[in-house]
Amino acid sequence: MNQQIAIQKQPHPGHADLVADWDRLFRVFICPKGRASRATLIKYMDQILYGLNDFLKKNVGITEAASLKDLSERFTDTVINENPEKKLADVITCLIKEIAPHAVNVSSPYFVGHMTSAIPFFMVHLKTIVSALNQNVVKLETSKVVSVVEKQVIAKIHRVIYNNTEAFYQQHVQNADSTLGVFVEGGTTANLTAMWAARNTKFKPKDGFKGVEAEGIAAAYRAWDIDRCVVLVSRRGHYSLRKAAGVLGIGNENVIPIDIGKNNRIDLPHLKRTIRRLQTEEPRTCIMAIVGVAGATETGTVDPLEELAEISHRVGAHFHVDAAWGGPTLFSKKYRHLLDGISLADSVTIDGHKQFYMPMSCGMLYLKDPAALNVIAYHSNYVNRMGSVDLGIKTLSGSREANSLILDSALKIMGAKGYALLIDHGIETAAAFAKEIKKRDLFELITPPVLNILTYRICPPEIKALLKTADSDQRRIINEKLNTVNRRLQRIQREAGASFVSRTTILRDNNPDDAIVVLRSVIMNPMTTIAILNEILDEQERIFERELKGLLEEQAEGV
Amino acid sequence: MNQQIAIQKQPHPGHADLVADWDRLFRVFICPKGRASRATLIKYMDQILYGLNDFLKKNVGITEAASLKDLSERFTDTVINENPEKKLADVITCLIKEIAPHAVNVSSPYFVGHMTSAIPFFMVHLKTIVSALNQNVVKLETSKVVSVVEKQVIAKIHRVIYNNTEAFYQQHVQNADSTLGVFVEGGTTANLTAMWAARNTKFKPKDGFKGVEAEGIAAAYRAWDIDRCVVLVSRRGHYSLRKAAGVLGIGNENVIPIDIGKNNRIDLPHLKRTIRRLQTEEPRTCIMAIVGVAGATETGTVDPLEELAEISHRVGAHFHVDAAWGGPTLFSKKYRHLLDGISLADSVTIDGHKQFYMPMSCGMLYLKDPAALNVIAYHSNYVNRMGSVDLGIKTLSGSREANSLILDSALKIMGAKGYALLIDHGIETAAAFAKEIKKRDLFELITPPVLNILTYRICPPEIKALLKTADSDQRRIINEKLNTVNRRLQRIQREAGASFVSRTTILRDNNPDDAIVVLRSVIMNPMTTIAILNEILDEQERIFERELKGLLEEQAEGV
Repeated sequence: MNQQIAIQKQPHPGHADLVADWDRLFRVFICPKGRASRATLIKYMDQILYGLNDFLKKNVGITEAASLKDLSERFTDTVINENPEKKLADVITCLIKEIAPHAVNVSSPYFVGHMTSAIPFFMVHLKTIVSALNQNVVKLETSKVVSVVEKQVIAKIHRVIYNNTEAFYQQHVQNADSTLGVFVEGGTTANLTAMWAARNTKFKPKDGFKGVEAEGIAAAYRAWDIDRCVVLVSRRGHYSLRKAAGVLGIGNENVIPIDIGKNNRIDLPHLKRTIRRLQTEEPRTCIMAIVGVAGATETGTVDPLEELAEISHRVGAHFHVDAAWGGPTLFSKKYRHLLDGISLADSVTIDGHKQFYMPMSCGMLYLKDPAALNVIAYHSNYVNRMGSVDLGIKTLSGSREANSLILDSALKIMGAKGYALLIDHGIETAAAFAKEIKKRDLFELITPPVLNILTYRICPPEIKALLKTADSDQRRIINEKLNTVNRRLQRIQREAGASFVSRTTILRDNNPDDAIVVLRSVIMNPMTTIAILNEILDEQERIFERELKGLLEEQAEGV
Repeated sequence: MNQQIAIQKQPHPGHADLVADWDRLFRVFICPKGRASRATLIKYMDQILYGLNDFLKKNVGITEAASLKDLSERFTDTVINENPEKKLADVITCLIKEIAPHAVNVSSPYFVGHMTSAIPFFMVHLKTIVSALNQNVVKLETSKVVSVVEKQVIAKIHRVIYNNTEAFYQQHVQNADSTLGVFVEGGTTANLTAMWAARNTKFKPKDGFKGVEAEGIAAAYRAWDIDRCVVLVSRRGHYSLRKAAGVLGIGNENVIPIDIGKNNRIDLPHLKRTIRRLQTEEPRTCIMAIVGVAGATETGTVDPLEELAEISHRVGAHFHVDAAWGGPTLFSKKYRHLLDGISLADSVTIDGHKQFYMPMSCGMLYLKDPAALNVIAYHSNYVNRMGSVDLGIKTLSGSREANSLILDSALKIMGAKGYALLIDHGIETAAAFAKEIKKRDLFELITPPVLNILTYRICPPEIKALLKTADSDQRRIINEKLNTVNRRLQRIQREAGASFVSRTTILRDNNPDDAIVVLRSVIMNPMTTIAILNEILDEQERIFERELKGLLEEQAEGV
């Protein structure tokens, strides 16, 4: 068969001197000894640290110097050159001059739209060390002390969440059989791992049945005499929970969304009614897990975790807390009470690349019971052998980089208090921002901040007045118009490139007919001040006046 | 409730000057402008690049200067300091002087035991750029051009595998709806994603059924009238396939291991018999996927991919090729024929952190059909909206770092030919190593290399002679003794710290009674020469003579 590969293209013109040969290959693998080469490699790091930084200073938000369409047209050559095209120096220059200016400056204090932000400068050094060491934490034979350090830093964060006794931590911190937590790729994998463990615990082996992991869902339901299995979480739950249920064979429709009640938290009466209905009308439905959200992606809100823990316990469901966003709030003496009850969770998701300010991508899952992940353990003949301390036994992934070294070092450099300062700044700046929004007639605050996220929208005073007296049909029509305005506003502001807020769609009063498009701000950059946020509001007012007002005037007349 | 956290510990003595305050916090977020600070930060990079390298030169293999037990005892403090403990400079020094010496020097040419190796020096620079940019490829709004570059590099590798027409690539390379491949965390996630897509395609929506992703496995089996679903792969298949079946609710026992035939490839007659048996005796069993291995983890062997493609097609099963290891062999004009048939695969796994020599962790999945991953798409209100070009729509993970920039740059620096040289070196050195092993009486070559992996064991000539005439009971007894010897040998050599080979357990003639422990060598480091491999064999002979011979002498008498 024709396995001829299209890699015979001529060398890039002007680089005919770049030929792949053994000599050159050796040079890239061996650390150069000469003073000159050494100086060159260090100079590259200077370029990376400072050249990139110059770009970061010049560009705020999402630059539109080149449109996505233009960019797409530039990157269509799909043939790999037979010989090298560029030297490292040219690659670095190209990344700094040609790629970085069209990337997104997530570190600008005007970039307040997503959960990706500036990271402390030292994080780049730490990541560099991790790559230079290139340990693989899947097994001890490719990581050794790094696995030991990982177990320690996991115990440190476990202690912040669960605050068990010193004796407990001495027993488990370096115990090969204990798993206080695992490093994964991000919140999605952490949530998936939690649901995976919950599923396998619920459908464990019994007489004549080897467990769901061995025999699958259909056999498990037969063995345990049920028809379906559900997960309960508020409408604010992250979409990764639906994804987890889909992947795990439970079915994403079996993640039942519970309404939002007061303060944008889960509506406990609705949760209880749902449970009662399931228990009385569907005795063959298993309530596998209840999930509490600690820092909802869209609104930053926190569910009443203590009550959810109590309900989960009563129902016999796994209680998971998705604190991917909110977890580090525990470092703040002023605000950690907002997460009261988290220590009652069977499992907790926290992201490293969110409020631990680590580089992409790092997530973590913590377990109350150090034996909880035994139900997802896998072994093989060449690694992760039974009884070994290989960390890969109880993770979804196999090979994995040593992000734990970064977190461990960051905790030493920042101290708990350093993280607390960041948390306090975010929460307090968001509160001040909410006040500013309320002061301005043009805006409507939709979800007030609990942590450091809030949503609002453009809604001029005359429309606010209309909405007060409108019936539900009229409300829908008005909201649709407002949705168009807010959607356009977000895009125009993004494309102007001076700042960035994101947008999402939220149901008012859990009513699918009252879906409103909102602007969403995430305040996590310590450089983001209330002055900057006011500039962003000013810009939004200007865009509205200049380009969008007309749309609503027709509306006001129409109703 | 008691949410008091144990973070009130006193500052580390001697660092009482390190206090977390706003001033200090600002400094770590802002790029320092002064000449002196700038010089300091660059000096740190020098330390990282060269200080680590000095360690790498001094230590080969897995150092045992401190035992795992000693190390475990040193890392048991689980309290996070309230104030900072260390400055960046001290953290770096500590990592270089205290951590690195007890890590594993995977880059030593004497480290030939696992699929983790030296990486070219430039990879560290590239990873540093990726962290400094800190783009999040889940969505365009946090990555922009980087998403575009990612689509391009995926098309480049797709072309190496599938070699479609230029028109095909022009149509799909930047098409928002087309997915030629995805970057994931590693081979495990890639294999899982392939099986996930296969499952969802097999159990797609039909009248009265919304599809397995929505309704789950039990409902899917009812709707499609089947009892179970199986995946067929040789006994050499990676354990991640069992894990995938477990996670996906199919059940890991439904991954049916097919025997190994000639040349350590899948036994096609056994595969066909198994299919026939399933089709005739279990009409309600669905053959979901057949997996071919291109570079088995334990033996480096490659299945007959063309034949497997033909069988899969006939059976209506998804044909997946796990080329996590072997994929880059396609760059070698001399050896790419070994993977003939790979272009017939519905999906192909390739790892970036294996033979693309990228830093941990990077895997990829490639798809023949650019629409194949539509069945695993997820959307949400705030990202990954319907119709957007957000790359996170069709990956298991959400937030994700831009490893594609590293691969794209590496291809430019190395050229296809640079990778080909590495592949050729590995395959040819492994062949030469096999010859050396056969020359030496003490050893027995168990699986000859096809790519760059082989297995062998200690088996002195008198035991070889015994085995020839032994009945199966005797063989089992002898092999158990040999297994002990080889297991101990591997550990003694590893602990001596001068070199490292791994070990695994292989069934001879697919016979569970004939499980033999073998030494496993993976030749991927371009610095690993046949001279070094001979040194490793010499050391093994010495260890055997000195410490293990006695065990077998008893044995020879016993039989």
